Amino acid sequence: MASQIRPAKRVASQRKDVWSIVNEAAASAGKPVINLGQGFFGYNPPAFVIDAAKQALDRVECNQYAPTQGRLRLRQALSAAYSPYFGRTLDPGTDIVITSGANEGMLSAFMGFVEPGDEVIVMEPFFDQYISNIEMAGGTIKYVTLHPPEKGDTEVCPASDWKLDLKELEATITSKTRMIVINTPHNPIGKVFSREELLGIGELCVKNNIIILSDEVYDRLYYTPFTRIATLSKEIEDLTITVGSAGKNFYATGWRVGWLIGRPELIKYCSAAHTRICFSSVSPLQEAVAIGLEAAEKEGFWEQSKKDMQNKMSLFNEVWDELGLPYTNPDGGYFVLVNMAKVKIPADYYFPPHVAERARDFQLSWFLIKEIGVAAIPPTEFYTVANEKEAENYLRFAVCKDDEVLEAAKKSLMRLKEYM
Amino acid sequence: MASQIRPAKRVASQRKDVWSIVNEAAASAGKPVINLGQGFFGYNPPAFVIDAAKQALDRVECNQYAPTQGRLRLRQALSAAYSPYFGRTLDPGTDIVITSGANEGMLSAFMGFVEPGDEVIVMEPFFDQYISNIEMAGGTIKYVTLHPPEKGDTEVCPASDWKLDLKELEATITSKTRMIVINTPHNPIGKVFSREELLGIGELCVKNNIIILSDEVYDRLYYTPFTRIATLSKEIEDLTITVGSAGKNFYATGWRVGWLIGRPELIKYCSAAHTRICFSSVSPLQEAVAIGLEAAEKEGFWEQSKKDMQNKMSLFNEVWDELGLPYTNPDGGYFVLVNMAKVKIPADYYFPPHVAERARDFQLSWFLIKEIGVAAIPPTEFYTVANEKEAENYLRFAVCKDDEVLEAAKKSLMRLKEYM
Repeated sequence: MASQIRPAKRVASQRKDVWSIVNEAAASAGKPVINLGQGFFGYNPPAFVIDAAKQALDRVECNQYAPTQGRLRLRQALSAAYSPYFGRTLDPGTDIVITSGANEGMLSAFMGFVEPGDEVIVMEPFFDQYISNIEMAGGTIKYVTLHPPEKGDTEVCPASDWKLDLKELEATITSKTRMIVINTPHNPIGKVFSREELLGIGELCVKNNIIILSDEVYDRLYYTPFTRIATLSKEIEDLTITVGSAGKNFYATGWRVGWLIGRPELIKYCSAAHTRICFSSVSPLQEAVAIGLEAAEKEGFWEQSKKDMQNKMSLFNEVWDELGLPYTNPDGGYFVLVNMAKVKIPADYYFPPHVAERARDFQLSWFLIKEIGVAAIPPTEFYTVANEKEAENYLRFAVCKDDEVLEAAKKSLMRLKEYM
Repeated sequence: MASQIRPAKRVASQRKDVWSIVNEAAASAGKPVINLGQGFFGYNPPAFVIDAAKQALDRVECNQYAPTQGRLRLRQALSAAYSPYFGRTLDPGTDIVITSGANEGMLSAFMGFVEPGDEVIVMEPFFDQYISNIEMAGGTIKYVTLHPPEKGDTEVCPASDWKLDLKELEATITSKTRMIVINTPHNPIGKVFSREELLGIGELCVKNNIIILSDEVYDRLYYTPFTRIATLSKEIEDLTITVGSAGKNFYATGWRVGWLIGRPELIKYCSAAHTRICFSSVSPLQEAVAIGLEAAEKEGFWEQSKKDMQNKMSLFNEVWDELGLPYTNPDGGYFVLVNMAKVKIPADYYFPPHVAERARDFQLSWFLIKEIGVAAIPPTEFYTVANEKEAENYLRFAVCKDDEVLEAAKKSLMRLKEYM
């Protein structure tokens, strides 16, 4: 009898996730909604990458199993592209593993090192998949908060004003701490951790032998100097696994090609876990990403990509300046956190129970979808309940969309005036 | 210090897996080796599928995140293609989830239902990934043996002569048994379980409330009537998750598109686990597979595919008839198990320690690579050590290769005469 079927605890939660709530709200809005919620691109990967994918599809060996560690050409291309940043020659044979998106790469890292009873430190706000990935490996999560700018409700603040308190981080460390997750450039804040901040974190990790999982999937989109924690010292590098994403780099979030870079002693266990999780990753698109990496520099793609995204960010944020709504000015990535403390939702406004019971940002998100026709993500989904107050006035908007879409969204958002 | 880094137990094993052993042996052979080991295709997916993939790459939405449950068009195409086989209308919304290859699909099913302390029954010989997937979910594996034909050392036997003893299966069931894995058509045996066998297994599962994970990735390649266990009764279907693979169906093992089919009560938890494992699967190739499924029937692809593989099987097996080496005549799939009891390896032949310490089939595999120039897989990798004697004289050959490759392999294999 189906009714006797009991799921594993790890999947038994019935709480609706933010993506379902936002998508369902948009679908039930009864009119077109401009989706600035999920961080997918509104345009295609560059032609030189698409063409490479089409050519790969004509090659027999590109359509069959890739090596579990990833296609050699892609590992070589990553070595060529990233060795200069890491200040050492990355060995394609031992220092890199290709994964089914950065997400499965992070799961592979957790599965490689975390066991029941181990603790992993995660900063709030966090990318929600970290949590279930760590729990799947049997780990317990310890949270430390990135505190929002004090003047965030009233002034435009730089992303660097979101602060980690190193003393709080140190107090979170126990003898069971196995790993810490860093995300820079940060989603959803847009913070690029400074060299000093990373050095502080890195030294604590060296002192306590904590593996650093550095999620750098937005590593081509930074608007202030960007430091990779692995480059700060030999001791820190020996503990660091760096996460990268072709989906974010090449506007192809649906391709599911990511990678982990680190010392052989770390990568071999990530690679073993990856093999056990999904055997190998999508072969023809790995080849396309390899060719893309080989060509990107001379195509001027990285510079153009960064400039384009900065332009989109400036273009979009004009609406907040005009409305007088403060936001966190991002130093990287393609998300902007906007503070909606000034937006007044009518007192008798109806919210369904699964929205009414969540923090104010869920209600703001619902209200914007229904009344303004623009979807954004409520960031308290990325907080523990204990700390969600910190972000209850913010909404996250993704600007990786066509300029016309951003202009249309701005036009709609101007109607927020009526509620201020 | 890197030396202080301790991996999780689930990845700590240092034992070399069969794929590494065979590949390294082939690489060190000092001459070209014909690889009939791993089951990848030696030719491309059909043009109508390749073309569909290229067209999908031009569409913005096909390059971005697919829904976590999979692209709707693919779920609809699967519903259209499989509803007739299942004898009920499969709901694309609730009865199907798309996974990153069948492998990650199976992991999703284990993660959805297996918790530490639970037991999962697996038949020997097994596909090796089952084991690590179950262990990753915290499950304990209980084995039951598919006994080889008694006359296997001397006569060609039908795959149906490999027998499951239902009493042995029943004795393996405990109050902790949560799931059983079935594989039909079977890798490596080529056995297609009969309706009676499946009914026996299914009834035991209903009686004991055991979820059935039916790995049917070779479901388009059967040369005898093929029964899907989910179709045997309502009670059995309520417990069955069926696994499928676009990689096996369309000659594209590197595409990593698979699926699970079952009742909503089962699929929703598999889908939740899949989301946590890798968020979503490769989007443009999902679209291509959808279009492939829509077209396959009218292209006459399934019939042709089956006929082609049967022809390859007959063509290849001529060499065993000529040599007088008995084999298991497969009723499905593209592997043939050949019995090499008659092959005499010279007494003083050198094997490296990691081969010498394994069962005789590892030495046979090594010997064939080095002396004959043909790579095959030793099947005791797919047995527990306690039972490996059952298969120590067999080698597994994959025939999903171009006819010229098979002919070249046959020519080389004729030299086995010198060792008989």
